[in-house]
Amino acid sequence: MKSIIAAAAALMLTGGVFAQDTFEIEPAQAATADVLVNQALDSDLAWSVVESLTTEVGPRLAGSEAEARARAWGEALGNSLNFDRVAVENFTMPFWDRGELEISMTAPYNLALHGAALGGSGRSPRLGAINSDVVYFRNVAALMAVADGSLEGKIAFVDGDPLVATQTGAGYGPANQRRRIGWQHAERAGADAIVVRSVGSDHHRNPHTGMISSRDGEWARIPVIAISNPDADQLRRLHENGTPLAMHIRSTAGWHGEVTSGNVVMDIVGSELPDEIVLIGGHLDSWDIGTGAIDDGAGIAISVAAAELIARLPERPRRTIRVVMFGAEEVGLLGARAYAEQHADELPNHVLATESDFGAGRIWQFVSNVDAAANPAIDAIGRVMAPLGILRGGNEDGESGPDIIPMAMNGVPTVGLSQDGMDYFNLHHTPDDTLDKIDPDALAQNVAAYVALVYLAANMDVDFRTPAEASDVEENAAEQ
Amino acid sequence: MKSIIAAAAALMLTGGVFAQDTFEIEPAQAATADVLVNQALDSDLAWSVVESLTTEVGPRLAGSEAEARARAWGEALGNSLNFDRVAVENFTMPFWDRGELEISMTAPYNLALHGAALGGSGRSPRLGAINSDVVYFRNVAALMAVADGSLEGKIAFVDGDPLVATQTGAGYGPANQRRRIGWQHAERAGADAIVVRSVGSDHHRNPHTGMISSRDGEWARIPVIAISNPDADQLRRLHENGTPLAMHIRSTAGWHGEVTSGNVVMDIVGSELPDEIVLIGGHLDSWDIGTGAIDDGAGIAISVAAAELIARLPERPRRTIRVVMFGAEEVGLLGARAYAEQHADELPNHVLATESDFGAGRIWQFVSNVDAAANPAIDAIGRVMAPLGILRGGNEDGESGPDIIPMAMNGVPTVGLSQDGMDYFNLHHTPDDTLDKIDPDALAQNVAAYVALVYLAANMDVDFRTPAEASDVEENAAEQ
Repeated sequence: MKSIIAAAAALMLTGGVFAQDTFEIEPAQAATADVLVNQALDSDLAWSVVESLTTEVGPRLAGSEAEARARAWGEALGNSLNFDRVAVENFTMPFWDRGELEISMTAPYNLALHGAALGGSGRSPRLGAINSDVVYFRNVAALMAVADGSLEGKIAFVDGDPLVATQTGAGYGPANQRRRIGWQHAERAGADAIVVRSVGSDHHRNPHTGMISSRDGEWARIPVIAISNPDADQLRRLHENGTPLAMHIRSTAGWHGEVTSGNVVMDIVGSELPDEIVLIGGHLDSWDIGTGAIDDGAGIAISVAAAELIARLPERPRRTIRVVMFGAEEVGLLGARAYAEQHADELPNHVLATESDFGAGRIWQFVSNVDAAANPAIDAIGRVMAPLGILRGGNEDGESGPDIIPMAMNGVPTVGLSQDGMDYFNLHHTPDDTLDKIDPDALAQNVAAYVALVYLAANMDVDFRTPAEASDVEENAAEQ
Repeated sequence: MKSIIAAAAALMLTGGVFAQDTFEIEPAQAATADVLVNQALDSDLAWSVVESLTTEVGPRLAGSEAEARARAWGEALGNSLNFDRVAVENFTMPFWDRGELEISMTAPYNLALHGAALGGSGRSPRLGAINSDVVYFRNVAALMAVADGSLEGKIAFVDGDPLVATQTGAGYGPANQRRRIGWQHAERAGADAIVVRSVGSDHHRNPHTGMISSRDGEWARIPVIAISNPDADQLRRLHENGTPLAMHIRSTAGWHGEVTSGNVVMDIVGSELPDEIVLIGGHLDSWDIGTGAIDDGAGIAISVAAAELIARLPERPRRTIRVVMFGAEEVGLLGARAYAEQHADELPNHVLATESDFGAGRIWQFVSNVDAAANPAIDAIGRVMAPLGILRGGNEDGESGPDIIPMAMNGVPTVGLSQDGMDYFNLHHTPDDTLDKIDPDALAQNVAAYVALVYLAANMDVDFRTPAEASDVEENAAEQ
């Protein structure tokens, strides 16, 4: 009974069903939002943007000259459209690249493996490749139990359960442990290298790259390589047949000192409240083995297209709309951290923020984490999105994209437009992250949802921020 | 009107609808066929065979030591099952391998391309890679029109229309021209190398390999490379934007003299007519970039499993059932040609032949090319297969697998069990041709169809061959 009462109380707070909590969007704004939604559904602007980025710039590894070309591309794009201010905001970062990789099974027979060094991987010894017997671990838990020094002269192969594909992407975290921390245990045990089953839900000969986790800022000294799921299946079958395995690995992956990266910040300046910012964006860098179409050319394209449709209106919105093309997301949210630092004074003026960084699938849910008093207005925006097939989620978790985390930690209200992630981990961080994987209709639906959200949030006479005192009160209440 | 009369005449000849043409299978044989079909549907024998071949032997390039291991595997398998005779029949062949390949786009920026040398490709100059500007051709017809000598110092890139996926595989031939003969025109025009859009219906970063066609026995002197469809899309978009393209290619592909290959021939010796042979099979070699699961581990597995189920019956069939694991199919039906030569005296005793070499999809059609008098018996076999979801096709085209062609040209009657090829060219000749792509239920349906076919063909009191005189009469009639 208690839980039903709690649910009813939550419903009252989130305002879904009680007339006194409904918020009416001003008719003129509602009409304009409708026009924008229909324009977005008919527009190929987002498609053109992601086609241009993936074709003319191509892969964009964080910190590389390709990422610098992407910033120049972004700056030129912003200037060619109707943005009022376009700035590149640089920061410095350590640069890692994958160099060259040879990886093959050498016993019981020669089989070229489809592998990719993981971000932060070390290299094989400069004067030779690694040719070692393989010790098989069914999963990362088995590797974590290994004794110090027990893998001297060996290569650890860490198998694992497949990534479970879900709409929300909930399968990623559990599968990701072998990629993130496996190397720390292999290195502790003295292994020459560690090879892990790719974190992905596909069945292609595609390795999935991605960052490893540092150990208190220290990166791997040994090669840390992901191999494709079919290759991992093959090794598992051979191991289960009792067949001893060996591998050849040569990797020149490594760190190359400090380089410059940057964020591209593009504003449509508000007419009445130019200092108040509604922020959307995506990240400009991509893993280098694909062309970064779904991760995250799509997010860049959706954000730019939504803002541009608003910039083409006869009047500027009341608040400033800011599109940020974040740099160096894949290697640790470096652009997002730099943005939060460089804009620290301005963060209290960020009235709402979100990022599109979960592919190019259709949006199915709209979640938020705004002040409770503003929730009826968010619900009203949700009703504008409902015809697009978007469910209004709750106001407890505004999961809004990784680059928003540093802002959210500083109190910026967030919303999230949840994309269907069922196919995302078939493509994410693989060579298959290419333009042809994007469905233009789904992309246009994303733009339609964003344009409604951003237009209304920038024009409504509603503050989504929690006043400092109220926030303190809530926190005190929560503690009791 | 004439065509309706012709169709009616054909129906009368093929006997589909006229009571006087029906053939009744002996009740005991029909009952045994039913038992075998149900055993096949419940059996995982074929799965075990293809799992073993792809896992324990792996890729099996024609003429390689891996193909030799596959023959040893096949011989051991036959001896471990209930075959009466198992023989390896060697032949010699020229050996080509792909060596190493580097291929990347170098202008307008660096992009690693996913490529594979085509069988019969030449190599880049020994003392250096090729770094050349690219000349784009929209399709092979455009390349064929190029003037002699006009591509000196250039790399020809031949784009093309996508392979159209169909149930029958009819899209393969048209798409295949750029792979087969494009090099002859590039070489005539003096190009340093030719790169073609892969012949495949998928959208993955997978190159599709396969053989080029020789020019009167001469093979390419220049590198002949296929790149993945997404890579070809990228080059097309850049070209259409007016961007000049350049590439880097280093290939060590080439020919390495004569080697030994072989066929594995496995017999269940007939009890009454041991000299009369019903032949089924698949090919043992595979392209080396996958593990040859659907092409053609599946065909080997289906054939072995169907024959083995019959070999486990208390009595031998009336005729001999022969399973042939053909060697060196991919490089020009070399095993099939060797078989036809080595068994030339015996070919008139081959009463029926077919091969499974179109993947592991469900069988949807049963076609034949047998003597008209035997067609009612083939129809009767078709009725046994109908509950498996198999349509009886005609008796005009017994398309029966490439390795049967040399036999068919020598008058051996053929049948074909048409597999669903809708997905076949997503996988065929790619790194993705791996075990996980096989559906065990579809594989078992294949075995069920084959076991019915082979058991009945080996036991029925029907000759599928056309008597020499009758054949002459028909040919004379056709000429009039």
